[in-house]
Amino acid sequence: MLDILIKNASELVTCKSAGPKTGRDLDALDVVKGGDLAIKDGRIVAIGHLNEDAKKIIDATEKAVLPGFVDCHTHLVFSGSREDEFALKTQGANYLEILKQGGGILSTVNRTREATPPQLLAAALARIRMASDYGTTTLEIKSGYGLDFQNELKMLAAVRCLHTNRRMESVPTFLGAHAVPQEFKDNREAYVREVLRMVEEFRRQSLAEYCDVFVEEGAFSAKEAETVLKGAKACGCRIKLHAGEFSDIGGVELGADLGATSIDHLDYISEEGMRLMAEKKIIGVLLPGVPFHLMTGHYAPARRIIDAGIPIALATDFNPGSCPTLSMQMIIALACRYMRLTAAEALNAATINAAYALDRGDRIGSLDVGKQADIIILNIPNHRQLPYWFGMNLVERVIKNGRIVK
Amino acid sequence: MLDILIKNASELVTCKSAGPKTGRDLDALDVVKGGDLAIKDGRIVAIGHLNEDAKKIIDATEKAVLPGFVDCHTHLVFSGSREDEFALKTQGANYLEILKQGGGILSTVNRTREATPPQLLAAALARIRMASDYGTTTLEIKSGYGLDFQNELKMLAAVRCLHTNRRMESVPTFLGAHAVPQEFKDNREAYVREVLRMVEEFRRQSLAEYCDVFVEEGAFSAKEAETVLKGAKACGCRIKLHAGEFSDIGGVELGADLGATSIDHLDYISEEGMRLMAEKKIIGVLLPGVPFHLMTGHYAPARRIIDAGIPIALATDFNPGSCPTLSMQMIIALACRYMRLTAAEALNAATINAAYALDRGDRIGSLDVGKQADIIILNIPNHRQLPYWFGMNLVERVIKNGRIVK
Repeated sequence: MLDILIKNASELVTCKSAGPKTGRDLDALDVVKGGDLAIKDGRIVAIGHLNEDAKKIIDATEKAVLPGFVDCHTHLVFSGSREDEFALKTQGANYLEILKQGGGILSTVNRTREATPPQLLAAALARIRMASDYGTTTLEIKSGYGLDFQNELKMLAAVRCLHTNRRMESVPTFLGAHAVPQEFKDNREAYVREVLRMVEEFRRQSLAEYCDVFVEEGAFSAKEAETVLKGAKACGCRIKLHAGEFSDIGGVELGADLGATSIDHLDYISEEGMRLMAEKKIIGVLLPGVPFHLMTGHYAPARRIIDAGIPIALATDFNPGSCPTLSMQMIIALACRYMRLTAAEALNAATINAAYALDRGDRIGSLDVGKQADIIILNIPNHRQLPYWFGMNLVERVIKNGRIVK
Repeated sequence: MLDILIKNASELVTCKSAGPKTGRDLDALDVVKGGDLAIKDGRIVAIGHLNEDAKKIIDATEKAVLPGFVDCHTHLVFSGSREDEFALKTQGANYLEILKQGGGILSTVNRTREATPPQLLAAALARIRMASDYGTTTLEIKSGYGLDFQNELKMLAAVRCLHTNRRMESVPTFLGAHAVPQEFKDNREAYVREVLRMVEEFRRQSLAEYCDVFVEEGAFSAKEAETVLKGAKACGCRIKLHAGEFSDIGGVELGADLGATSIDHLDYISEEGMRLMAEKKIIGVLLPGVPFHLMTGHYAPARRIIDAGIPIALATDFNPGSCPTLSMQMIIALACRYMRLTAAEALNAATINAAYALDRGDRIGSLDVGKQADIIILNIPNHRQLPYWFGMNLVERVIKNGRIVK
């Protein structure tokens, strides 16, 4: 007998694809109308018009059924919040100014260093619950608010504790190169060496799948990033980069050269950078919540990025400074309005392509027989309504790994 | 014994004021820290540090307690949705173009005319539930998708049915002058006469508190609005206007002259218009969800409007064409980012001033002893976090008229 049978969905939006979707293919969704979906032992076992028996039958009449969202770029583990900095921003202060004044990332570093492991974990669990409630079934989590061995370890250990959470699969990324901590501000080279020491140790303990570097003025140069990422690759880490969030200082070219899995932000990117990413089939992770929250109005040139042949993904970049939202629905709403994506493009970017941005495209990110049953049911009759109604949670049901979690 | 005692809120944000808040006063919030609030027989009976017994005690430790949101401008009763029109807009089509092609408002008119009263009511009730879930405890609802006697009556009758809903107080507004229907397109004068006939009849049946006119190119001229609104006043209606949504064609000056309760939109407004509104103490209802959804980037000049001394309110303008959100939290998030309001200004605008925009400032809109117990409890420790976390529902509890409805 089946475990779960979802009956009569007005749309089963499969998002299926043999690889990351690019170009016109990104705008194509494989939609089954009026279809059913069967789940057994945590997997999707059939899609179509089914008449089998099931322990649980979910009526999806007038509802759209989608793969769970894959949020492939978050900084979910941290302590504190930065609403006062946000208030300053609404009065005109900018992100790099706040960073230079010892605010920004470093203020969250201070709060996170002070937090005990149970405090960090409790805050993270509340956020996991919220993200799940909004339809995310897998999310990546970066360290980078510890910036020393002990505190980076504390963050990655918190992510490991989340592995047993039944609502969410968490993917750990080491981001020791998020900012140079105060104690190393006059000796950046020594901090880069410390980051190399950390990545080696965390890999040995299997605490990080990816190593990421924030390549930006005020953070790390492309040259420093190269040292870190080459060291990370040497000990078996896959790599990611933050590049082009506020300026273009060579992160994209470096990431292409080193074979990054994804390069994230791309609000600023050169034609040559686009050409290289397309050639190397590197996923471009776009994060429209950041220019929205920071009020820069400068969104990644998504249409040109798509036209260049780069497979794009969407993510929240959830963090207390530049994007305090966990809702992938909000990110999709922003991407359609301010990056001019179609609903189909945004959905593929938030599911199957995001799964490939975490090297999991063969297991999650689409409704496909044999894949893990990570599924959301939305209270709308078609996927085009997903970006249309905004600021509200349209997700009615969440199934993670074949279990109903909402 | 008390009915409900809310204990130990980290902030009781009272928003109390003897009249609509203007200028610097708009940025002042009366906040009680670590306080309690007592409810009996649907009313707030005490605020402070209380030790009375209650049938129900709610622990609000680390939570902010606010007056329920008053959404003073919605078009909540309609049939259908317009996601395909939205998709066109993301590809560059504009609102007035779509209107001229018989799309826009008139497409919703067709769907609403076809709908049966139970269908209309069922859709409205689902929306009321959503709005309530996001913290709205009172909302205004405009007719205007019927555009003939029978169908405007059907809409206003649906609003009357909502009066018994325990989650929400609904305030009915007649907006026969929303668009000229197809059957009158070559005889606008006759339609204006028809609107006058309708307002008289609906007033006689006490189906409308307010009469509103959409003053805009492609909708109604200031001259036509004058005819309608004078007729409405003559039969005892209070009046509102949509003015300056896409252009400034004299609606503000007319509204000031006729003593409107509120003039709504104001994305385009002259210096003289501002002076007149301030002088007459007319509430300016700002609707930032519209330029957000329509991607015009042209928000009302809120800072200048506040500096001019106009009391502002915030509302969703919930409707299927120009603002498909019911979340006042989203509207506040937009107002702080794109109109540069402070959190305090946005909160006063969404509560006490919005209550005055519905002539209910003496009964709702603030936490004040003697007032109706319309209260929301948010899962944040201070009100400054309300615009900061965005795209997520922070409302944990809703109390309407002294009853827990969430």
